Amino acid sequence: MPILDAKTGKVKKDYTVEELIEKAKEMRALDMIAVTASKSGHTGGTLSIVDVATALYLKHLRHDPATPDWDERDRVFWSTGHKAPVLYVALGMAGYFPAEETVKLRKLWSGFEGHPNRLKLPGIEASSGSLGQGLGLAVGSALRAKLDGKGYRVYCIMGDGEQQEGSVWEAIMSASHYNLDNLVGIVDKNGLQIDGKTRDVLNIEPLADKYTAFGWQVIRVDGHDMKAILKALGDAEKVKGKPTVILADTVKGKGVSYAENVVGYHGIAPKDGRCGNESLDRAITDIYGAGGGAFPKEKVNRILSIADNYQKEVTQKVDAMVPKFSRNYWWNAEGDMKVKMDPTRMGFGRALEKLGEDERVVTLGADITGSIRMADFYAKFPERKRRFFSCGIAEQNMTTVAAGLAKEGKIPFIGSYGVFITGRNWDQIRTTVCYNNYNVKIADAHGGVSVGPDGATHQALEELALMYYLPNMRIEVPCDSVETEKSTFAIAKLDGPALVRFGREGTSVVTRESSPFTFGVANVIRYRGRRQDFIDAFETVLGDAYRNEKEDLCIVAIGAMVPEAMRAACILKEEYGLETRVINPHTVKPLDTRTILQAAEDIGRIVTVEEHQTGGFGNVVAGVIGRGKKPGSAFIMDMIGVDDRFGDSGEPWELTKVFGLSAESIAERCRKLMSSGGK
Amino acid sequence: MPILDAKTGKVKKDYTVEELIEKAKEMRALDMIAVTASKSGHTGGTLSIVDVATALYLKHLRHDPATPDWDERDRVFWSTGHKAPVLYVALGMAGYFPAEETVKLRKLWSGFEGHPNRLKLPGIEASSGSLGQGLGLAVGSALRAKLDGKGYRVYCIMGDGEQQEGSVWEAIMSASHYNLDNLVGIVDKNGLQIDGKTRDVLNIEPLADKYTAFGWQVIRVDGHDMKAILKALGDAEKVKGKPTVILADTVKGKGVSYAENVVGYHGIAPKDGRCGNESLDRAITDIYGAGGGAFPKEKVNRILSIADNYQKEVTQKVDAMVPKFSRNYWWNAEGDMKVKMDPTRMGFGRALEKLGEDERVVTLGADITGSIRMADFYAKFPERKRRFFSCGIAEQNMTTVAAGLAKEGKIPFIGSYGVFITGRNWDQIRTTVCYNNYNVKIADAHGGVSVGPDGATHQALEELALMYYLPNMRIEVPCDSVETEKSTFAIAKLDGPALVRFGREGTSVVTRESSPFTFGVANVIRYRGRRQDFIDAFETVLGDAYRNEKEDLCIVAIGAMVPEAMRAACILKEEYGLETRVINPHTVKPLDTRTILQAAEDIGRIVTVEEHQTGGFGNVVAGVIGRGKKPGSAFIMDMIGVDDRFGDSGEPWELTKVFGLSAESIAERCRKLMSSGGK
Repeated sequence: MPILDAKTGKVKKDYTVEELIEKAKEMRALDMIAVTASKSGHTGGTLSIVDVATALYLKHLRHDPATPDWDERDRVFWSTGHKAPVLYVALGMAGYFPAEETVKLRKLWSGFEGHPNRLKLPGIEASSGSLGQGLGLAVGSALRAKLDGKGYRVYCIMGDGEQQEGSVWEAIMSASHYNLDNLVGIVDKNGLQIDGKTRDVLNIEPLADKYTAFGWQVIRVDGHDMKAILKALGDAEKVKGKPTVILADTVKGKGVSYAENVVGYHGIAPKDGRCGNESLDRAITDIYGAGGGAFPKEKVNRILSIADNYQKEVTQKVDAMVPKFSRNYWWNAEGDMKVKMDPTRMGFGRALEKLGEDERVVTLGADITGSIRMADFYAKFPERKRRFFSCGIAEQNMTTVAAGLAKEGKIPFIGSYGVFITGRNWDQIRTTVCYNNYNVKIADAHGGVSVGPDGATHQALEELALMYYLPNMRIEVPCDSVETEKSTFAIAKLDGPALVRFGREGTSVVTRESSPFTFGVANVIRYRGRRQDFIDAFETVLGDAYRNEKEDLCIVAIGAMVPEAMRAACILKEEYGLETRVINPHTVKPLDTRTILQAAEDIGRIVTVEEHQTGGFGNVVAGVIGRGKKPGSAFIMDMIGVDDRFGDSGEPWELTKVFGLSAESIAERCRKLMSSGGK
Repeated sequence: MPILDAKTGKVKKDYTVEELIEKAKEMRALDMIAVTASKSGHTGGTLSIVDVATALYLKHLRHDPATPDWDERDRVFWSTGHKAPVLYVALGMAGYFPAEETVKLRKLWSGFEGHPNRLKLPGIEASSGSLGQGLGLAVGSALRAKLDGKGYRVYCIMGDGEQQEGSVWEAIMSASHYNLDNLVGIVDKNGLQIDGKTRDVLNIEPLADKYTAFGWQVIRVDGHDMKAILKALGDAEKVKGKPTVILADTVKGKGVSYAENVVGYHGIAPKDGRCGNESLDRAITDIYGAGGGAFPKEKVNRILSIADNYQKEVTQKVDAMVPKFSRNYWWNAEGDMKVKMDPTRMGFGRALEKLGEDERVVTLGADITGSIRMADFYAKFPERKRRFFSCGIAEQNMTTVAAGLAKEGKIPFIGSYGVFITGRNWDQIRTTVCYNNYNVKIADAHGGVSVGPDGATHQALEELALMYYLPNMRIEVPCDSVETEKSTFAIAKLDGPALVRFGREGTSVVTRESSPFTFGVANVIRYRGRRQDFIDAFETVLGDAYRNEKEDLCIVAIGAMVPEAMRAACILKEEYGLETRVINPHTVKPLDTRTILQAAEDIGRIVTVEEHQTGGFGNVVAGVIGRGKKPGSAFIMDMIGVDDRFGDSGEPWELTKVFGLSAESIAERCRKLMSSGGK
């Protein structure tokens, strides 16, 4: 069934198979242009599903782009949210919005987020990004159709690596239990996932046998043969009494020579940008031949300029949101106060490499091993590979397997994006790790909005609340890559569950190997005046050694907010002559209550800063002060963080600014607190 | 292999098949005695696994009860922690401790908790209770054996309903990926689960085909044929290169006539207690014939008396922990101040029954439908059954299915034990429900330590921290069953995600249909002097209508702690002449900050009380006050809750007392805060 008019039921637009094949080329080109423009995004997995997407959105689905909410429309759930670029292109080509707009991929406020957001664009059935959740949604939608006697059909696009998530098998089991013959699962079987070949990361085969045993009809198809895809979709409609899965054999990166079957082209844009061996131009040539066919250079240039112009507008708007001062205090903006940038995750990797000398240390991977630097454990030591256990995209099982290893005397490290490694497996952490008091170490990676263009689903902002209230858990939130290394060593030494939270993007290095660091003791940091190097402009001492300087206010900051708090202290001093005591309690649990209470007594004005839902940390500080301070002494406080909203898709520093987490915003909030009085 | 001596490797004790069959009878008897003595526990599922447990612990396993930590021992993980009674009996019969001690089942501090706690008893490999986690642990243990060249074998006992959990399939996939031929899964296929027949609740068949497709060797066996069980265990040792699952066909309640194949005998003790049709005596007769065989009446009496005497000691110790006053203020202890007891869950059921009139309201079940009163939705209205979707023990999928139904215009209610309905599915709630802002309603049932004898794994103490920091979420924590009904109506009316937390056991009814209730507005409650009925001794007004009475202190309590706080207010007045403003902010999010701030300004002495990890709620209150109060005004506070520890197995009121959550303890803490000064 082609694109319809919701009101009349008449065909609005139809295509022949040949035209669809041509449209798929166009989609590939637009997809590559968008990914190139955004300098990030998922090249491989979008190219493998393009032909299926073309068949669905331009031919098979009953839908009307002019009436996205038409209740009779067929539904498609993209469980693999990271394939968003091709979803956007498909919606654009179908007529939901101008297809060329998709070049604003991953740019702030464009709606074309790193992972789909149903509240931002028409035609998106559900926001997704965390794997393994789409099929359950589709089951719910299909159940409603049965309940209300609706004739729409429901499709769910999944990845093959995604089949490792147990929640997928729950949904598979429930779909056949309810005989949902209005439901079709489509697995993009490109055979690769982030950590390598699916059969090596965690073998899912024989997948057809598995679906059959779970009561589904299985249809196999060449996922790049348009005619075959359409036939498979048609055949699925004839299956009665049970759900159907279409196992589409595909090639990751299909159609772009340098990306085909290359593991590394999972989540990145063409390495050489616009020109070169691995470039957009080469991709267009691969798709259309020399000359670029439907996408000559001028057209590509024009589309790319849409993104450039949009980004310029965004940059202006973002800058307008940041408070201005007499000079530019931004990182490395002037000749002095220089800092080095280094992602905190690098410190984790360095520590893990050294910790690997201990034979008891083992590591587990959930298909994001390189990016979170877990792979540094074995990168230079191939013999350690036997102490690395690839678990696939199965965070729950990774957690219990780690617990089993810990139980037998090993010191296992597990890790992933913060959302998935504290929230997907929360009950496993609670019951199997913490209640048993097993010696499992958690790398809570890619925390905070600074994750950037991946968007809200991948920006962990709740881990502290999830982990803080678990008995036996200990938590480190180091401030830079140097401290992350120390924190990792510190939690490795502990017996029992412990977590270290760190980020993805480069942030300022504000400590040295020689800087004070004691697990459970906060650092007090004082601004002493501008220097050539930012790091030298501050004095740092352990909280229990600090003597009151009767500062005007105190900022208690954690993680990547510590460098921002330090810079805020500099701004407050230079601009307003205010002295700030910055406290960095890298150990969030057990928290150094003494140093915090001392600041409450000494100063009485406290501002907490966290790259986290506001209060997850700040409320703990408030509780410490409320319960511990001397009767009769007053205090006021403010809390800076992400205020009860999800993150967004954009550049890391853009988001830091937009969410009010940069030093400029912190300084302004501090000044407001000062002017409100207190103490 | 029989029971060994860890030092010499010699056989310590061996049994013939005939002796094992006799031992299994003994185990059944001890199991039934323990369950009867505790008046709760899992009759059906323990009787179905007794023969397998006998074969393992008395014959097949290589282990030495005198050296529980012997590294060469075979490991058994009880993933179905609720079968704990038979684990205890098996360990006792093997010699880990006197078998008759198991009669202290589920009693406070006995170690024989409702679900196994490895830190309390020897021979328990891991604490368990939340389903679907044992096999991953077993995989970890088996991987370590491979890594270190250890010869021990690893067993994991699972339920058939448990096969509905996706985490089990993650573990199954990983075990075959790693060719773990030292791992044996045992599925107790008794065909029943709490909500009914497994094939009706959520069909898991054909289970053998599923395991085969996932790369496992499958062995089927009659789970009550001792010889066959031993052969199956032996055959499993011969399988090379892949894990083995033994699918044991069993009869739930096997050996006890009235419990055999009866769904209702999942989690309860013999209905008639010691004597009668469904009694312990009848069970012993069923096992041994008239006269009781190895368990004559005198012996049963003697064993039961061990439990009675132990309970008396516990009761004395618990009572000694509760502060004493000039009179007994305990619920219904004297002639006046009478209250009715009613579990808060009843209010949820009543509301749901009425809400069912709206055709858009649908309910979903996770195999605990009756107990949490979700079944009240259709109990009197069979035609509503089509709007009930049984999801099995698969909380993740239940959540996304509900989201799919919500997306299509339904108003779905999901629910389970608080741990499983906020923590097992946290990422699904975050990404699919909250980020999409879907209209899913969550029944957070059986919250707090008052769940009682089930123990720590089933006592949710972290939900507020998990849910509070999720954007779009709203939270109700009502104080009694009447208010639970109102709260349920309130969240049903909202558009978007919302949760109501309630408890399992009967707690005091302290509000009426006519009591003030407005979503988002706290109630202020004042003690006005003793009355015939407790409820009449208090005046309640909405927070925004309350006028300052210059009280001495303020208690901000939530949920079942509100009645305790009210009773504490009574004690404080009667014993010390102190006036207390009790605030009941049943809406925890969005919190009525105005009423709390007013109390901080008016009174300056705040005590928070939560049946939750301390601070999950209290720190939010501290944050509200810290951020919102007027500069210059001092305040002091205390927080009462569960102080960074897990719950325990015991009677609900025992636990309330032991955890310092009863009015007596609250009153004492308040008095201490008063004497510390403040304001």
